[in-house]
Amino acid sequence: MTIVESDLRTRIEAANAKALAALTSGEPVLVDVAPAVEVVPALRERLILHAGPPIAWDRMCGAMRGSAMGLALFEGWAATPEAAERLLASGGIRMEPNHSHGGVGPMAGTTSRSLPVFIVEDRAHGTRAYCRPAEGRQQFGDFSPPALATLTAWRDLFGPALRAAVRHLGGIPLRPIMARALLMGDELHNRPVAASSLLANVLAPALVESGVERTPLLATLGLLRDHELLFLSLSMAAGKAVADAAHGVADCTIVTAMARNGTEFGIRVSGLGERWFTAPSPAIDALYLPGYGAADAGLDMGDSAITETVGLGAFTLPGALAILALVGGTPEDAAAYGREMREITAGTHSAYRMPSAAFAGTPVGIDIRKVAKTGITPVIDTAVAHREPGQPIIGSGLVRAPLGCFTDAVEVFARDHGID
Amino acid sequence: MTIVESDLRTRIEAANAKALAALTSGEPVLVDVAPAVEVVPALRERLILHAGPPIAWDRMCGAMRGSAMGLALFEGWAATPEAAERLLASGGIRMEPNHSHGGVGPMAGTTSRSLPVFIVEDRAHGTRAYCRPAEGRQQFGDFSPPALATLTAWRDLFGPALRAAVRHLGGIPLRPIMARALLMGDELHNRPVAASSLLANVLAPALVESGVERTPLLATLGLLRDHELLFLSLSMAAGKAVADAAHGVADCTIVTAMARNGTEFGIRVSGLGERWFTAPSPAIDALYLPGYGAADAGLDMGDSAITETVGLGAFTLPGALAILALVGGTPEDAAAYGREMREITAGTHSAYRMPSAAFAGTPVGIDIRKVAKTGITPVIDTAVAHREPGQPIIGSGLVRAPLGCFTDAVEVFARDHGID
Repeated sequence: MTIVESDLRTRIEAANAKALAALTSGEPVLVDVAPAVEVVPALRERLILHAGPPIAWDRMCGAMRGSAMGLALFEGWAATPEAAERLLASGGIRMEPNHSHGGVGPMAGTTSRSLPVFIVEDRAHGTRAYCRPAEGRQQFGDFSPPALATLTAWRDLFGPALRAAVRHLGGIPLRPIMARALLMGDELHNRPVAASSLLANVLAPALVESGVERTPLLATLGLLRDHELLFLSLSMAAGKAVADAAHGVADCTIVTAMARNGTEFGIRVSGLGERWFTAPSPAIDALYLPGYGAADAGLDMGDSAITETVGLGAFTLPGALAILALVGGTPEDAAAYGREMREITAGTHSAYRMPSAAFAGTPVGIDIRKVAKTGITPVIDTAVAHREPGQPIIGSGLVRAPLGCFTDAVEVFARDHGID
Repeated sequence: MTIVESDLRTRIEAANAKALAALTSGEPVLVDVAPAVEVVPALRERLILHAGPPIAWDRMCGAMRGSAMGLALFEGWAATPEAAERLLASGGIRMEPNHSHGGVGPMAGTTSRSLPVFIVEDRAHGTRAYCRPAEGRQQFGDFSPPALATLTAWRDLFGPALRAAVRHLGGIPLRPIMARALLMGDELHNRPVAASSLLANVLAPALVESGVERTPLLATLGLLRDHELLFLSLSMAAGKAVADAAHGVADCTIVTAMARNGTEFGIRVSGLGERWFTAPSPAIDALYLPGYGAADAGLDMGDSAITETVGLGAFTLPGALAILALVGGTPEDAAAYGREMREITAGTHSAYRMPSAAFAGTPVGIDIRKVAKTGITPVIDTAVAHREPGQPIIGSGLVRAPLGCFTDAVEVFARDHGID
């Protein structure tokens, strides 16, 4: 090891410690629920934001194309799916990543101007991020009238009602809810059922106190009663706000985003700016809903791997064994994933703990050097979209991030720092 | 083995299979929330029902005496604690067990005419049981004005509001909530946090739909937001309704009640009628709240061991590891308890499963023969009351049922069946 390399190693360790401190000290607070255009002024244009790294229409997977067509119909920019497709293919509606605009979205992640988004602020660092609502159809590529009806209900009923409740409360601290939910078997990505339920408990009296009228009140209380995936958007927005607080640290080798557009899997690294390091999206080891199988499946998709980026999701599998019924695998597999993730991370979280792993903290802060050296790649809980446009969710499973993203990033990092 | 004994063994196995089927096929439904006097007409008299087997005032522990004094004040039968104590000691207010009147109560379990009770019906078998609300003060023996104010809120605000919501829904099936809560780290006795949260999700829209007025509505939504112990009363009433369906099977050696009055621990057995088999209440292996210690602790108390009787509570510890922070012990201890409870039970529950024990069903149906033969006694999650009257909750922990109850019951069973 040369003196230059030794000095660099010291600087990397200091930088990574700083990023880890940001990742573990985040205090995400749900501060508002607003039409997306209030948060992203660029959405005044005919623009749809999507999951993952940037991608052109002709390379986009079927589910993302279907999901964008759905939003073009929802916004009234096209009257038929065919017209929507033409507009999108011709550039009459542009598409850019959520991550370029301070947000994230589940699955196709498509976000347009009228869709409500949850806004989470990390009050420890002042960073903010948005995420659209999670549902099982339109974000998976389904553009049918029933799929779009859910978006209309979000725009006209749920969004305004939740906005009133959240503002009435002056924000809802999410860290305590997330910590409790991890003790209740959530992994806060595919299984946010406890967090959704606890959040609903907090929102119910606030909906009444803030004077929401009877029709939106009853509709929203019904949503809160039944919507197990509700909290996913908050896990994701919280993850993005906290990860952004760890981004941009010079000499830092910690991953601050993992995101997939259904064609490519990409990562960003704290010390490597806005560059994406990409590789082909992997196939998912999945359990399918009745009537579907591997031949129907699209490749891995969604910004939701931001949860694993901040040490949640599959990184908590040893403590979240109830999800094995959804994604497959045994408790031994889950424990093994936990051991592996500890090998590639910078530390553990002091507040997010896993009861069925002796209350150990969740592993957090993926270090590209450790991934490249060990060949162990991050494990991610995920859902499966159809390979063709027009379909709802078809399954759930586990996926491993592709190694190439991490080895490429290490190479660029080394080159940037003058090492061969 | 004689022919008589062989024939009896066959009859016992058939009887136990019948009781086990009742215990595992129960479909508990919350059907109403009503003033206790509507459910127990005997409460028109000056009567207070209590936890555990029958006990005279002069042998009653401090917490139960304090708790009864609190209800005498609450009902307006006495103006001062001293006057309440005199009335109770003189028989001017009588006391009888909940179990003699078709119900159960947590800790001291004291139930008087005006206190609301939850009413649960096992719709598979038609049995019904009641249980009063759980709170951390009056039922632990505290008779101060703040402790009694909670009862007033239950009587005037929460009880009527919840009654309206439950009736509006036509009842709330509890088995699905309990099954889900077990997948969320609840053991449904000391830790019913997930079940409470899920129940609150169901109740919130019903409270609005049933037209509850703003003041009781907001008060009750606030209760549902914060009251983690809410579901304990429902676990208990469900346990009693289901256990009663398994009671009274001739030749059956399955336990259908475990209950403690703070002085004695008692069990009932399906094939042995209404007789209690008792032994001194054990001391609790506890974690104490700040400022309290073992020298302050009363002995084990409460009807809540009905949850372990039906295979919940500490019988689910291998799947409910989050509670170890409350009651103490390691995951290895929890797994060992699970193995032990399987040795003394007749079977496992097909719907109540433990994710961190590879989704195994919970052990259910305590067989007095197996307890007596192995010397392994049921393990119970419990809370700790002060030894003196006038105090709130002071801790939580684990306790083992005393072996003597089971060996005595086996002796009586043998004698009843003509075996030495």
